[in-house]
Amino acid sequence: MKKKLLLSSMFLLVFNMGVKAQDEIKEAVQANIDESFEALTNLSDQIWAFEEIAFQETQSAAALSDYAESLGFKVTRGVAEIPTAFVAEYGSGSPVIGILGEFDALPGLSQNKVPYKSPLNEGAPGHGCGHNLFGVASLGAAAAIKEQIENGELQGTIRFYGTPAEEKFFGKLWMVRAGLFDDVDVVMDWHPGAETKTAVQKGLALIDFQVEFTGQAAHASSDPWNGRSAGDALELYTTGINYYREHVKPTVRIHYHIQTAGEVVNVVPDYSRIWVRVRDSSREGLIPVYERIQAMAEGAAIMANVDYKVNLISGVHEVLINRTGSAAMQKNLETLGSISYTEEEQDFARKIQEATGKPQIGLVSKIEPMEETQEHSMGGSTDVGDVSWVVPTIRLRATTAPNGTPWHSWAVVAAGGMSIGHKGMAYAAKALSMTMVDLFTNPELVAEVRKEFIEKKGDYVYKGFVPDGPPPINSDLQ
Amino acid sequence: MKKKLLLSSMFLLVFNMGVKAQDEIKEAVQANIDESFEALTNLSDQIWAFEEIAFQETQSAAALSDYAESLGFKVTRGVAEIPTAFVAEYGSGSPVIGILGEFDALPGLSQNKVPYKSPLNEGAPGHGCGHNLFGVASLGAAAAIKEQIENGELQGTIRFYGTPAEEKFFGKLWMVRAGLFDDVDVVMDWHPGAETKTAVQKGLALIDFQVEFTGQAAHASSDPWNGRSAGDALELYTTGINYYREHVKPTVRIHYHIQTAGEVVNVVPDYSRIWVRVRDSSREGLIPVYERIQAMAEGAAIMANVDYKVNLISGVHEVLINRTGSAAMQKNLETLGSISYTEEEQDFARKIQEATGKPQIGLVSKIEPMEETQEHSMGGSTDVGDVSWVVPTIRLRATTAPNGTPWHSWAVVAAGGMSIGHKGMAYAAKALSMTMVDLFTNPELVAEVRKEFIEKKGDYVYKGFVPDGPPPINSDLQ
Amino acid sequence: MKKKLLLSSMFLLVFNMGVKAQDEIKEAVQANIDESFEALTNLSDQIWAFEEIAFQETQSAAALSDYAESLGFKVTRGVAEIPTAFVAEYGSGSPVIGILGEFDALPGLSQNKVPYKSPLNEGAPGHGCGHNLFGVASLGAAAAIKEQIENGELQGTIRFYGTPAEEKFFGKLWMVRAGLFDDVDVVMDWHPGAETKTAVQKGLALIDFQVEFTGQAAHASSDPWNGRSAGDALELYTTGINYYREHVKPTVRIHYHIQTAGEVVNVVPDYSRIWVRVRDSSREGLIPVYERIQAMAEGAAIMANVDYKVNLISGVHEVLINRTGSAAMQKNLETLGSISYTEEEQDFARKIQEATGKPQIGLVSKIEPMEETQEHSMGGSTDVGDVSWVVPTIRLRATTAPNGTPWHSWAVVAAGGMSIGHKGMAYAAKALSMTMVDLFTNPELVAEVRKEFIEKKGDYVYKGFVPDGPPPINSDLQ
Amino acid sequence: MKKKLLLSSMFLLVFNMGVKAQDEIKEAVQANIDESFEALTNLSDQIWAFEEIAFQETQSAAALSDYAESLGFKVTRGVAEIPTAFVAEYGSGSPVIGILGEFDALPGLSQNKVPYKSPLNEGAPGHGCGHNLFGVASLGAAAAIKEQIENGELQGTIRFYGTPAEEKFFGKLWMVRAGLFDDVDVVMDWHPGAETKTAVQKGLALIDFQVEFTGQAAHASSDPWNGRSAGDALELYTTGINYYREHVKPTVRIHYHIQTAGEVVNVVPDYSRIWVRVRDSSREGLIPVYERIQAMAEGAAIMANVDYKVNLISGVHEVLINRTGSAAMQKNLETLGSISYTEEEQDFARKIQEATGKPQIGLVSKIEPMEETQEHSMGGSTDVGDVSWVVPTIRLRATTAPNGTPWHSWAVVAAGGMSIGHKGMAYAAKALSMTMVDLFTNPELVAEVRKEFIEKKGDYVYKGFVPDGPPPINSDLQ
Repeated sequence: MKKKLLLSSMFLLVFNMGVKAQDEIKEAVQANIDESFEALTNLSDQIWAFEEIAFQETQSAAALSDYAESLGFKVTRGVAEIPTAFVAEYGSGSPVIGILGEFDALPGLSQNKVPYKSPLNEGAPGHGCGHNLFGVASLGAAAAIKEQIENGELQGTIRFYGTPAEEKFFGKLWMVRAGLFDDVDVVMDWHPGAETKTAVQKGLALIDFQVEFTGQAAHASSDPWNGRSAGDALELYTTGINYYREHVKPTVRIHYHIQTAGEVVNVVPDYSRIWVRVRDSSREGLIPVYERIQAMAEGAAIMANVDYKVNLISGVHEVLINRTGSAAMQKNLETLGSISYTEEEQDFARKIQEATGKPQIGLVSKIEPMEETQEHSMGGSTDVGDVSWVVPTIRLRATTAPNGTPWHSWAVVAAGGMSIGHKGMAYAAKALSMTMVDLFTNPELVAEVRKEFIEKKGDYVYKGFVPDGPPPINSDLQ
Repeated sequence: MKKKLLLSSMFLLVFNMGVKAQDEIKEAVQANIDESFEALTNLSDQIWAFEEIAFQETQSAAALSDYAESLGFKVTRGVAEIPTAFVAEYGSGSPVIGILGEFDALPGLSQNKVPYKSPLNEGAPGHGCGHNLFGVASLGAAAAIKEQIENGELQGTIRFYGTPAEEKFFGKLWMVRAGLFDDVDVVMDWHPGAETKTAVQKGLALIDFQVEFTGQAAHASSDPWNGRSAGDALELYTTGINYYREHVKPTVRIHYHIQTAGEVVNVVPDYSRIWVRVRDSSREGLIPVYERIQAMAEGAAIMANVDYKVNLISGVHEVLINRTGSAAMQKNLETLGSISYTEEEQDFARKIQEATGKPQIGLVSKIEPMEETQEHSMGGSTDVGDVSWVVPTIRLRATTAPNGTPWHSWAVVAAGGMSIGHKGMAYAAKALSMTMVDLFTNPELVAEVRKEFIEKKGDYVYKGFVPDGPPPINSDLQ
Repeated sequence: MKKKLLLSSMFLLVFNMGVKAQDEIKEAVQANIDESFEALTNLSDQIWAFEEIAFQETQSAAALSDYAESLGFKVTRGVAEIPTAFVAEYGSGSPVIGILGEFDALPGLSQNKVPYKSPLNEGAPGHGCGHNLFGVASLGAAAAIKEQIENGELQGTIRFYGTPAEEKFFGKLWMVRAGLFDDVDVVMDWHPGAETKTAVQKGLALIDFQVEFTGQAAHASSDPWNGRSAGDALELYTTGINYYREHVKPTVRIHYHIQTAGEVVNVVPDYSRIWVRVRDSSREGLIPVYERIQAMAEGAAIMANVDYKVNLISGVHEVLINRTGSAAMQKNLETLGSISYTEEEQDFARKIQEATGKPQIGLVSKIEPMEETQEHSMGGSTDVGDVSWVVPTIRLRATTAPNGTPWHSWAVVAAGGMSIGHKGMAYAAKALSMTMVDLFTNPELVAEVRKEFIEKKGDYVYKGFVPDGPPPINSDLQ
Repeated sequence: MKKKLLLSSMFLLVFNMGVKAQDEIKEAVQANIDESFEALTNLSDQIWAFEEIAFQETQSAAALSDYAESLGFKVTRGVAEIPTAFVAEYGSGSPVIGILGEFDALPGLSQNKVPYKSPLNEGAPGHGCGHNLFGVASLGAAAAIKEQIENGELQGTIRFYGTPAEEKFFGKLWMVRAGLFDDVDVVMDWHPGAETKTAVQKGLALIDFQVEFTGQAAHASSDPWNGRSAGDALELYTTGINYYREHVKPTVRIHYHIQTAGEVVNVVPDYSRIWVRVRDSSREGLIPVYERIQAMAEGAAIMANVDYKVNLISGVHEVLINRTGSAAMQKNLETLGSISYTEEEQDFARKIQEATGKPQIGLVSKIEPMEETQEHSMGGSTDVGDVSWVVPTIRLRATTAPNGTPWHSWAVVAAGGMSIGHKGMAYAAKALSMTMVDLFTNPELVAEVRKEFIEKKGDYVYKGFVPDGPPPINSDLQ
């Protein structure tokens, strides 16, 4: 019964918003984005070319910060003890609407803007997750809102968060820890993808940690009996982990990366290190698995007669989905309709699909009805999850790559560096800014969004999976 | 220099013993054995047919005890809390010379007296280690000495030890623990084999123990995540043991028998049990390996999140070789020469060799010079080792099976049940009794034997690898 | 559109069946079951006491056959090369309605009729799956229909299938292979449980197979380098299986039972054997997993330098659910209502719940609306699955044990041997016979049931997971 | 009998050589080495500072080549397709006496000339095997002989082999393959060590190979079931290797280095690579072990459903010891006596011993009687082994580091860079050149040396463990 009422009121909020002013402002923000399209494209292409990975995004962060500053935002650089994290703000008072922008690349994916694998800088990183578009579109949306605040059409505060290191270490964790989201009413977020939709799946919670084993070296031929092998410990540990797979729920994922298990062939290794990641569809399920796998390290150490140490690296929560806010986003997507592509773009897309063995159906950005939120979703994880447990978060996915493209691949880099990516970026900026217009103009929507957030969060007191001390900026963790 | 002197005096002891009386007594004991050959053969054939395994040798022990009693020995049955252990004694005063007799069979080796595999009682035990001959020959030797004590030619005490369960559990451990060897000057021992020689190799020390893992059962399909698998623990344990092999000295052996790792296919097993045996060429090397492998059980239990328990079963010391006594034995072997075989016996032997894929060279009992005692000997283990650390022990190996016969096989059972085995038994009885004549007639030899024993033993205080409490007579250990 | 029409016509079939005759016949079959309650109870208690496991149900099959024969059924014993499989038939012509009856017990679950663990015959089997009730209720339902055919109220053929070995080996496979279901229109089936409902979940498909490894024995201490270890192969195989768990879908289950990995501690084992079970929510998913795990045996054999052999034992399909037939069953359940229990029965139930650590809420047999059929169901498997792919099959679950009872446990044996079980049995017999009355009196229902069956089966040509040759009646498979 | 004659003639050869000329020439070569001590020391210190590892010894090879050329040797650089391999020759005709010189460093051992761990260039290589001294001493010895040929005291050819990459890849293999030793009568060789003696132990034969596994990448969370893990294959392979340890003879050693088993934590790895080394006391024992472990790679690949490739890297033979030649060397060592050390040097040595936890007994260079050659020697391996199977080879070990120093450690680098090392170098140069004087002046000695070589070699046709094609100069093998 209650649910029905909630849905009805959501309908009212979303569909009966039709005051003239709001629509006009939405048109104005779209126009702003069209006008700044060239500037945004240039900025995105720069970041694409910087190819900077987690916590090393110096030039990318500077370019975004400079751009924001040039538009009149007040920029605070180096927040949360992270040199490449920053906040760009404009306006004052309520509501405070935040928008997230990522800009880190992935190792080894450097690629030219061609529809077949062709490294730009062999071995260098590349934007295989489309984050060159991500940060720019969000900043573009913030700028469009800023213009409306500036000209008095909207009241309140728009705040862009430059959030580094999403691909590794999860930079937002330390930004949340630093209290940077404490006064925000609603956060907006998007992600590049191969389809266009309101994003209402939770993803997976995860924890990253390392285990180090320390034994005693010995000549592997002359006196292996004097050695205590850290390599053996690591191998017994992974064997144990694989046996443990039988005893976790189907929603759990465990994977690991053997970082070193010795350096030379003729020495019993006295040091080994493994990076372990555990995931589950929620943090509640995750924690006992994490604890179990930690405990297994002791067992492996005892078996190999070595010492061990477990280091928490970081981890993320699953996303707390806000369906009220998502419904507002969905309405705007339906207003905007799909992205239009040229025949050249579709041809580029089909060539990528051919090269990656996918059906050659080109680009897809059709707007489908909003999905049900699954109890247990599969797939990836994001540190947006942590933001979503401290502020209600509304999320979008917009097409920046051909349908079926393997993510974290050269193909994403290629499409994200040319017009396909640029169009997705502009589309995202519009959808995000239009939904922000809803939030700025409709306090009841903000209230309903926050109400759902508070209900879903319940009595959970958020605590990030992050060790004490500063973020691992210059870490030798990998 | 000292060594040279010792050797010289040994030479004197052994070679200059040539007083008439001693030779005549040696002839008398040989004659006694020839006279009782039929009785000994019958006794051996009875025990062969009883086919009784460790701690279940009720009929075999009774037959040997009855025979000893019938000859006038004073028999004490059921010693050391073991129903099938007994002592048969004759005479009084010094010296006290002991002689060991084993009589247990091995599971699954029942066999007819034919030179090809042919079970007598399918699945039943068989005398695959020749212990039907072992006990009888030793008792025959003791009886020959008893006759000489009785008729006044020798002074002192002859004592036959009926020692059960050599193949499993190691019965002598509890007989040693019970103090049954405390007043003995020298112990004699032999073993059936495929060659004839003074036995001067140490064998291996070993420890047997069990590890039990206890977890939590669960339906293997419906909710394996509620199970804590004792089977996983056992498998991780064996994996750990195999990794550990790199880190033990080349003289160490580790083997195990998975007794149970679950009973049905669709249940996460809550119980598993493994029998582990560790060996090394000496008890000093053995103990740290034993302790390490015990500790590994804790590691495996932690990895699989189950409980564990380690149960010491028993274990044996390597043999403390007495080369002074062995030299006396060697002299008697050289006097006796090799065993003579008929063409039928050689033919039987060659057929066994054919059936077991060995060179068809028939029976070998040639007397070679006494071997050097290796620092690290390979091969098997015996609970005579424990006796040898409390009393100086002189050992013989006599041919009872064709050259190259796989030990603990049907072929040993076959040969041990017919004239080949009987001849070896009689030969052993003669060699043992002749060497005992040396000991009874030559106090200096006994003194030298004991001197070597004390020197080699050093300050080691013997402690058997045996748990507190009674012997595992009705154990469900396997 | 089509689906909508189908549903509409189903509604008509199920709800508008209200001709007078049909209701009266339903009352008559219920009356018949009430009248034969004592006979059925006695029969069930006999089978409960026989405690016979898979393929050894000689007395149980005889008792059921004799009872059927005494009622006038034509009984064919020993069908499908299985001594304990039989068919009892009455009537002639169309429709031919079959009904399944199982009667095998489970090893080690013998139990008294008391609400705490108390073995009747220590170590003996027990009816931990309630099959003592299963076969009897089905036969009771068949008998009730037989009476109506006999007295001319119904036309057609009723056929009871005595189906042995459901708990192991899956006897129905060979009955299907023998063509015993080829002329049947619809099959009825039920199963004892802890709730009462139309059974519309698929269960899991599974395949059972054994892998045997054969190497070369050697003395584990003297010359392990001459051994090729079948035990090593088995352990490497299970290690491989556990690593493979990462790479199967969440619906897959793999479990195994190490049957032997060697017999004694001091021999490199030359033989080992493992029973492996793979499951998935459908046979399509199952087969590639089965093939992969088979192939892994070759890998393990190569690694350990031994030979191997894979033996298919048997396997089952997931159930092809017939929702048209289930809807008819649901209607009858709603007519029958829940089972009534005495305070003594609820007390017995609560004591069982206490003893097994479950909420003490007593017995539950409330009729809930028919469930959705899940795409991927979890839990157990049944050889009814195979029948359901050759004949449309309608299934019921009826309460015979307290809510929450761990299945395949002593608690099921206890409840199944007293009035709680008897009531469930009678209830099942009624629901089954009432639904059969629907089928006999309504040819359109049969036609719709078969239409759904044919549509869902599609072009799949059923092939059972069963090796060539006779069923493993006297198998030493274990 | 034959052996006795051989020994007698050896005695004559070695002890009755006492013609005046020979002794004087020996004094002359010693004088030459004393005179060039400063030059040799400078050369050694240069190479010590170059710190160049296997196949990268460009400066070291150039420095040695330049020095030889400056003395009048004819130098051929870049032999056997190896840029850093060279030959320096002087004289002509018979006999042709070769002498080997190594000069490669070891990774990660850079160290200052102080008696405690203190890296010179953090992370850089260091001469932890004393090869800075090795090549220089051998060239110094060759130069001393060259002077005697030049001044007409000796006739024949002296040839210095600059042999790179002994620590990895085994450069001499390709030099032997290129036929560079085909016309040599006897080869001289030495090695730095912690004692001074004629080297008469065989070392171990070894084979190095890599296994590469190639699977299919997949997202480790989203669809691990689409991945075929090269990491799993590698882990199963190492598990198999560890199980195999039970089944190799005690003389076998197997060790491995996991080079990569994946690069990131969230991807099922499609590539892995392991470096495996197998050793045995002789190549005959080695080959079946090598073949078995190769075959295991196939098994692991099948288990993980991936492809694999085995790449032979290289390997060495055990040394064919020449005791005739060694006896000549031993005589010269006894003539030379031990090395004298200052109190400062002994103090430096004791500090090193303190820092490495060894008994602080200082430097030891006492000349003991020549050892027996063990049938199975333990310890390391050398590519001198391969030379020794094509030319008779006489070997020396000279003290260049404190007694007990862990080899391949910073301590060897420290001692080898100061006067302790320099003294050992000069001593080695003298002993080598004195023994070469024996060979040049005594054709019968050469004949006897070659006779022993031919007898021991038997009918074995040498074939190096080296793949076809060029040596792995720029290999990415590690």
